[in-house]
Amino acid sequence: MKSFTRELWFNTQKEREFINITPIVEDLLRESGIQEGLCLVNAMHITSSVFINDDEGGLHHDFDVWLEKLAPHEPVSSYRHNRGETNADAHMKRQIMGREVVAAVTQGALHFGPWEQIFYGEFDGRRRKRVLVKIIGE
Amino acid sequence: MKSFTRELWFNTQKEREFINITPIVEDLLRESGIQEGLCLVNAMHITSSVFINDDEGGLHHDFDVWLEKLAPHEPVSSYRHNRGETNADAHMKRQIMGREVVAAVTQGALHFGPWEQIFYGEFDGRRRKRVLVKIIGE
Amino acid sequence: MKSFTRELWFNTQKEREFINITPIVEDLLRESGIQEGLCLVNAMHITSSVFINDDEGGLHHDFDVWLEKLAPHEPVSSYRHNRGETNADAHMKRQIMGREVVAAVTQGALHFGPWEQIFYGEFDGRRRKRVLVKIIGE
Repeated sequence: MKSFTRELWFNTQKEREFINITPIVEDLLRESGIQEGLCLVNAMHITSSVFINDDEGGLHHDFDVWLEKLAPHEPVSSYRHNRGETNADAHMKRQIMGREVVAAVTQGALHFGPWEQIFYGEFDGRRRKRVLVKIIGE
Repeated sequence: MKSFTRELWFNTQKEREFINITPIVEDLLRESGIQEGLCLVNAMHITSSVFINDDEGGLHHDFDVWLEKLAPHEPVSSYRHNRGETNADAHMKRQIMGREVVAAVTQGALHFGPWEQIFYGEFDGRRRKRVLVKIIGE
Repeated sequence: MKSFTRELWFNTQKEREFINITPIVEDLLRESGIQEGLCLVNAMHITSSVFINDDEGGLHHDFDVWLEKLAPHEPVSSYRHNRGETNADAHMKRQIMGREVVAAVTQGALHFGPWEQIFYGEFDGRRRKRVLVKIIGE
C-alpha cells in the first residue's frame, strides 16, 4: 500500500469564499503515482469545509444566501460561543457543507461524474488555514 | 491491496425519490471478495445523495417535507443558478443529505448497526444518473 | 495492509448530548499500530452522529438550539415516522451533523488541525448505542 500526504494553505480575501481546488488535487494525485485507492480531502479547521458540487457562480451565490439564512451571522450575541469570538455561525455553516470528501481513485484519476468539482468552503476567512489531502492505494 | 469499482445507473420515476441500494452494495462486496477494508458509495451527480438512514416510508415522507422546507424548490426565480436551470434547490438538498458514505467492511460484510441502510437520494430525477461503488482492502 | 476494528458503546444520561471521543480513538489508533492510512469513525445508529468540530461548551449549546430550530422535536405528531416512535427529529438532526468522519493517519497519529476533535452526537439517547472505529493502512 502506498500513501501520500500534503497540506495546502489558503488565505481568502473575503470572510466567506468558495475555491475550486480540483486541479490542485489532480496534480497531487499524479504526483502520488497511486492508480487505485481512496483520496481524502478535508478542512483542517472547524469553520471551513471541503465539499463537492457545481462550479457555477450563480449557485455559489445561492449557497451563500442559503447558508446565511439557515445559520445567520447576526445577531452575533445570540450565540453563546461568541464570547470573545464572532464565528459561531461559521461552525454551523461548516456542518451543513461538510468537513471532508472521500473520492475514488481509478486508473490514476479522480473517478468523478461530469460536473463534480472539489471546493474549499471558507466561512471565517482572511487568515491562513489548511486543507489536508491524503491518498492511499496502489 | 485489492480494489473493486462499479458504476450503478438509476433513472427515477419521480423528481425526488429515495431508493434502498443496500442489497446491490452487498452483492458487489461479495463479488469483490474483499474481507477487510472500506467501501465508498457516492453519487456521481451534484443534485443527488448517497446516505445511510432508516428504511421507513413515513420517515422518507418526513425527509421530503423537511428538505423542501429548508431548501424550497419555489420560487424557482429566487435562485441565481436558475437561469436555464430549475434545480438550485436540488444542489442544496444534496448538501444536507450528503454526497457519500464510507462503510467499514469486516469479515466480508458491511459492518452495520441494526437499522443502517444505504439510500440513493434523488432530488432532480427522471433522467439517467450514476452512483459509484469503490471498495478497497484485502 | 493492516486493518483494525472496534465497537464502542455509549449510554448517554440525556436525550441529546455531545461526547468528545478523540482520546478513545487516539488510544485505538496506537493499539492498531497503523502508521499511515485512514481512520473511519461512524455512528452505528441512525439517530446519532459522529462529527468533528470544536470542544467548546458554548458552541455545543448553540448547536443544540440550532438543530432544534432546523428540525424541531415538537409537535411530535407532525412527523409521519412518529407512529409508535417519537424520534423523527433525531433522524434529521443526524443528517445535518453527519454519520461519520474519515480522518487521515500520518506517522501513527490522527492528522488533525489545531482544534479538530471527534464527537459522538446523540439525538435520541438514554439507551445503549454503538460507534464503530475502523482503521486501515500500514
